[in-house]
Amino acid sequence: MDRHADPIGRMVAQLSRLPGIGRKSAQRLAYYIASQPEEWVRELAETLLRGRQDIRICSRCGNYAAMDPCALCEDTKRQHDIVCVVRDPRDVAAIERMREYTGGYHVLHGAISPMEGIGPEDIRIRELLARVGTEAISEVILATNPDIEGEATAAYIARLLKPFVVRVTRLAHGMPVGGDLEYVDEVTLGRAFQGRREM
Amino acid sequence: MDRHADPIGRMVAQLSRLPGIGRKSAQRLAYYIASQPEEWVRELAETLLRGRQDIRICSRCGNYAAMDPCALCEDTKRQHDIVCVVRDPRDVAAIERMREYTGGYHVLHGAISPMEGIGPEDIRIRELLARVGTEAISEVILATNPDIEGEATAAYIARLLKPFVVRVTRLAHGMPVGGDLEYVDEVTLGRAFQGRREM
Repeated sequence: MDRHADPIGRMVAQLSRLPGIGRKSAQRLAYYIASQPEEWVRELAETLLRGRQDIRICSRCGNYAAMDPCALCEDTKRQHDIVCVVRDPRDVAAIERMREYTGGYHVLHGAISPMEGIGPEDIRIRELLARVGTEAISEVILATNPDIEGEATAAYIARLLKPFVVRVTRLAHGMPVGGDLEYVDEVTLGRAFQGRREM
Repeated sequence: MDRHADPIGRMVAQLSRLPGIGRKSAQRLAYYIASQPEEWVRELAETLLRGRQDIRICSRCGNYAAMDPCALCEDTKRQHDIVCVVRDPRDVAAIERMREYTGGYHVLHGAISPMEGIGPEDIRIRELLARVGTEAISEVILATNPDIEGEATAAYIARLLKPFVVRVTRLAHGMPVGGDLEYVDEVTLGRAFQGRREM
């Protein structure tokens, strides 16, 4: 049977391209989608495509947002002189769920990784320098992941910013080494914020 | 922040409706989709919607297919006097992967379940009777799941068809190949004893 004439096979192939979705999961999902009313599937497809189309990257902090600048950057109740630097937009969501941090953010969209050929110029470090040069920033909190790339990125940025920013801090270890910031529980994440130290 | 003004939130809500996709997985998928090029997401969305639109249910066997009758029913190399009765289209795919069975199928699209208010008239038993009445069928293999609903469905169909079909069979129960006797549940082990055969 021609694979491309087979609607289920096409769906399985496409769903298998999603992260964490193996062949078995893709099959389960494809058969489930096949069993749903067409309107249900249309809503799913349109939500994904429109969601992607509606996403802006805030020109100031780099976070995903519906508008530019984003709601977080426009929030006058937040302390914008403190900037928390993270790798991904998902990390902003994780920190916001903690409900303790009230400063601003800077999303790098990646980490320095010589192994993968990602250098400082490939992530949003230039934009961070521009902010340090134009905004009144009193503290930069480096909240990149506690893994090799995250530590290297934090060390690189710390060296770069120290002459220009009063406090450059790193989240305390309290986070499990080798862990992923997004999966750290709120209490541990809160301790890590409280115990942050000078770099 | 208005949940519906938030593209990521909308994607997470929609993806959480898929089976086996919890909140964490939905978030991971939504952020991944957000990070992909728009064309990639369009292809995903269109494959799912078109896949659903292209799916036909074969009017003979009830399997999902691109055409009606399906390629399996049209395959003259298969023994269409043997019909394997299964609950779902996924079961057909599982049996086909085995590459040993060369007969036809009949997909019920469900199982009898008084608990869920699903009676014999709600699944494709009427269509099976029509086939038995019009096709030359020498054996019906009942391959519904070995759970309460599957056993009840098999028993019901067996009673119904026995006067009209020479052989009505049920898949053997027994030890899973490669399994460990110590870890096989008592009911399965009991069935394996009952079904023991000469060596």
